[in-house]
Amino acid sequence: MSRLEHLRHKPPQSLERPRELVLALPQLRSNVNLSRIVRAAGCCGVPRIYTCGKPKIDREVARDAVDTVEIIAHRSLPPVLKNLKAEGYALVGLEQTTHSQSLYEFAFPRRTALVLGHERQGLTDDVLALLDAAVEIPVYGQPFAHNVATAAAMALYEYCRQFPNG
Amino acid sequence: MSRLEHLRHKPPQSLERPRELVLALPQLRSNVNLSRIVRAAGCCGVPRIYTCGKPKIDREVARDAVDTVEIIAHRSLPPVLKNLKAEGYALVGLEQTTHSQSLYEFAFPRRTALVLGHERQGLTDDVLALLDAAVEIPVYGQPFAHNVATAAAMALYEYCRQFPNG
Repeated sequence: MSRLEHLRHKPPQSLERPRELVLALPQLRSNVNLSRIVRAAGCCGVPRIYTCGKPKIDREVARDAVDTVEIIAHRSLPPVLKNLKAEGYALVGLEQTTHSQSLYEFAFPRRTALVLGHERQGLTDDVLALLDAAVEIPVYGQPFAHNVATAAAMALYEYCRQFPNG
Repeated sequence: MSRLEHLRHKPPQSLERPRELVLALPQLRSNVNLSRIVRAAGCCGVPRIYTCGKPKIDREVARDAVDTVEIIAHRSLPPVLKNLKAEGYALVGLEQTTHSQSLYEFAFPRRTALVLGHERQGLTDDVLALLDAAVEIPVYGQPFAHNVATAAAMALYEYCRQFPNG
């Protein structure tokens, strides 16, 4: 193989059209988890994250994504999801449920709101009732469930793999 | 869609054969990043992680993966990588380099040692020189590079997607 040299400041890949992916999540227990999600979303070109409560983003964790990803906080998630649905977003929950499809096989609609659950409670019944689909990440060993920010990273990756140019 | 119900203790997917994926990484700056990687590796059925220094795994972060993923620490990474290569592992670095292939397109050998870099330095030249291949995750926005544990999660996911049964 040709000699590999580390590229320190490689420019990002450009999108042919803006990402139509947004994230929606309840108030998480951990602002670090939220901040990690913001960084990953920024790297993926996601323009907006809808959340609840009074989110505090840790700039040390989220880095420059704090300046590029819009964070919109509401009091609760269901009205946000209803608005997103009215704007044509498919509501896709990331959760182990009775009818989840494998993330390996799920074809994301381009216009998707990826709905994430709370670290402990996951997606609540009022949110599950609004979803168009649920996807889950196959797990093979302990602790049998991914951290929410880790799971979000995997789903963000899969969406971008399916829409590499936006 | 059928009514979705959250499954709280879904059993993991069983592997038809043990995972032949291992991770190899230098001593990271952050034991939290390492612990997050251990949890994700546990969920993916990865049996072993090779690292350097005196790793401290935070059980709050890694959860039960601390009991299932073997952590092997050496003084430096190159001898570990040479041993893995002698055992038939392809050494695949996760790094933006002059010759990295996109993770979207890279076909992992089943027997792979995924080599991760330090948060600041990335993969060092002595490690890059030993690799069989380098892969990178396309990024589309700020901060133009994923956190090491986030990137590891995406690469673990992609490997498992290619080898869903081990």
